[in-house]
Amino acid sequence: MTGHILALCGGVGGAKLAFGLAQVLPAEDLTIIVNTGDDFEHLGLHISPDIDTVAYTLAGLADRERGWGVSGETWNFMDSLRRLGGEDWFRLGDRDLAMHVERTLRLRAGKTLSEATSELCAALGVRRLIAPMSNESVRTILLTDAGELTFQQYFVAQQCRPVVREIWFRGCEDATPSPAFLNAMDRSDLAAVVICPSNPFLSIDPIMSMPEVKAAISRTKAPVVAVSPIVGGAAIKGPTSKLMAEFGARADVIGVADHYAPMLDGLVIDYEDRRFEGSLAASGLRSLVTGTVMRSDADRVRLARETLAFVPRISESAPRVRHEEG
Amino acid sequence: MTGHILALCGGVGGAKLAFGLAQVLPAEDLTIIVNTGDDFEHLGLHISPDIDTVAYTLAGLADRERGWGVSGETWNFMDSLRRLGGEDWFRLGDRDLAMHVERTLRLRAGKTLSEATSELCAALGVRRLIAPMSNESVRTILLTDAGELTFQQYFVAQQCRPVVREIWFRGCEDATPSPAFLNAMDRSDLAAVVICPSNPFLSIDPIMSMPEVKAAISRTKAPVVAVSPIVGGAAIKGPTSKLMAEFGARADVIGVADHYAPMLDGLVIDYEDRRFEGSLAASGLRSLVTGTVMRSDADRVRLARETLAFVPRISESAPRVRHEEG
Repeated sequence: MTGHILALCGGVGGAKLAFGLAQVLPAEDLTIIVNTGDDFEHLGLHISPDIDTVAYTLAGLADRERGWGVSGETWNFMDSLRRLGGEDWFRLGDRDLAMHVERTLRLRAGKTLSEATSELCAALGVRRLIAPMSNESVRTILLTDAGELTFQQYFVAQQCRPVVREIWFRGCEDATPSPAFLNAMDRSDLAAVVICPSNPFLSIDPIMSMPEVKAAISRTKAPVVAVSPIVGGAAIKGPTSKLMAEFGARADVIGVADHYAPMLDGLVIDYEDRRFEGSLAASGLRSLVTGTVMRSDADRVRLARETLAFVPRISESAPRVRHEEG
Repeated sequence: MTGHILALCGGVGGAKLAFGLAQVLPAEDLTIIVNTGDDFEHLGLHISPDIDTVAYTLAGLADRERGWGVSGETWNFMDSLRRLGGEDWFRLGDRDLAMHVERTLRLRAGKTLSEATSELCAALGVRRLIAPMSNESVRTILLTDAGELTFQQYFVAQQCRPVVREIWFRGCEDATPSPAFLNAMDRSDLAAVVICPSNPFLSIDPIMSMPEVKAAISRTKAPVVAVSPIVGGAAIKGPTSKLMAEFGARADVIGVADHYAPMLDGLVIDYEDRRFEGSLAASGLRSLVTGTVMRSDADRVRLARETLAFVPRISESAPRVRHEEG
């Protein structure tokens, strides 16, 4: 296939597919847009967890066992912070800390989050376009049975235990997509929008919450393809299926398809979910059945290749549902 | 002896005597005032090197081999910072970093440096009154043959190589001593001001540069005793003797005595410098000859005891030179 790929992703799961796409595509053909709804100010530092996860993953620095942060990490800062009575609910590794310090310095010096991200990625040797969804603040807020929580309060401090009633994205109405994001969406050679296997509610919805993104995705002729983060009724990682249940959605690939409708044109699902192929087809959605659990770099590359190969097959199909509905 | 002891000190050498004094004196009888002329903003953090050295030393956390920072320190933050192209000329250990992060948070929240210092010392288990010389900014600036340098540029980045022509303390005219400092100077039971063996130019002069300090030290009836940082014509650590030479001063205990005149009443000198006892006496200064090089905790405690025992012997002597001159 030819043309530009716009990948939308959150943290760990999304970063794995982004890694695969980065191995498969020439640098100029890929824009990776990352959720910043999880960003927060902590200990005086601007922390962008998903951007860091993507950057570390593409740099080959991510810790594979822990699933987040940098490999070979040490925790002496945290030990010392705890001793001083500092806030220790969010774990910051000694190596990782430099990223937050350097990002914060750049932002205070007046650089945009896009500029800071691109400089820090370059320093890590990542020669791919990784950009935040916006240079402005959009913050994921969860209304739960334990009160109103920021993403990190919910995800880290409370470990996703509270029942979520509503999610909103503070600032989304006024936020504009980052220049790289706008540029990718407007490209005449845009070949596909790939929604990486990230949490639809917490990683992809914040990106989609900006009015300009909704408009551009509805407008684009390029197919929108998602890789399901749900396999066999459970999320590979994180609270996706719990959230889906709390929202009265089906915690399976049909639930994912419904969530992304009407903008979605194709869905990549796991072998385990092949029984849903018919239902997906009935709703006008093309699907690709393959192994979607990425355990190795080879898995990531294979899934990226298969997802890209799936795109032209979608394009051949009937006009997208979203054009009829939107 | 009875009464309150006000100790003035800079970093490493001064901290050793402060440690000794803290072992020997009840908590309520000791105020340790620390130079903040070296403080600086770095990587967005407020760094108070001398306060930290004193706090770590009194907490028993100081690294004895390296001579600064915390023992058991690791450097993964620095490695990562370097990789990101960050400023790496000032080494910040992983453990040490928590101190700067927590101090900076407290200052941003509106606390004074005195409050931040006292909270952080308490968290380290240090139950002694350690206070900055001022809550306001006084910054040591060196005019050198390599241009105007801040203390850290001179001391760390340029490793004291440039020839110093002049030193000034930016902000000293408007700075007021910290509440603990003012309180100690004004106490009716003040038994002595002990100038710890720190660099007279770079650690003690910044403290003395504030007009209220000069006035209070001239006013107090308590003897002022210094422990010489110069032994046998060389500083135990740091650039003291080099600086003295550059200023045309004698790089020996006579030079130290001259520098502190007319406020000084007594000087503690090393056995190696006992030949100067007569000259010091001739200039009206009482001296105590002992071992001033502190290699062990026992040395620190012994020197503290001897210095305190020296105080009443000074008080018995003739009115101080500074009363005649001032």
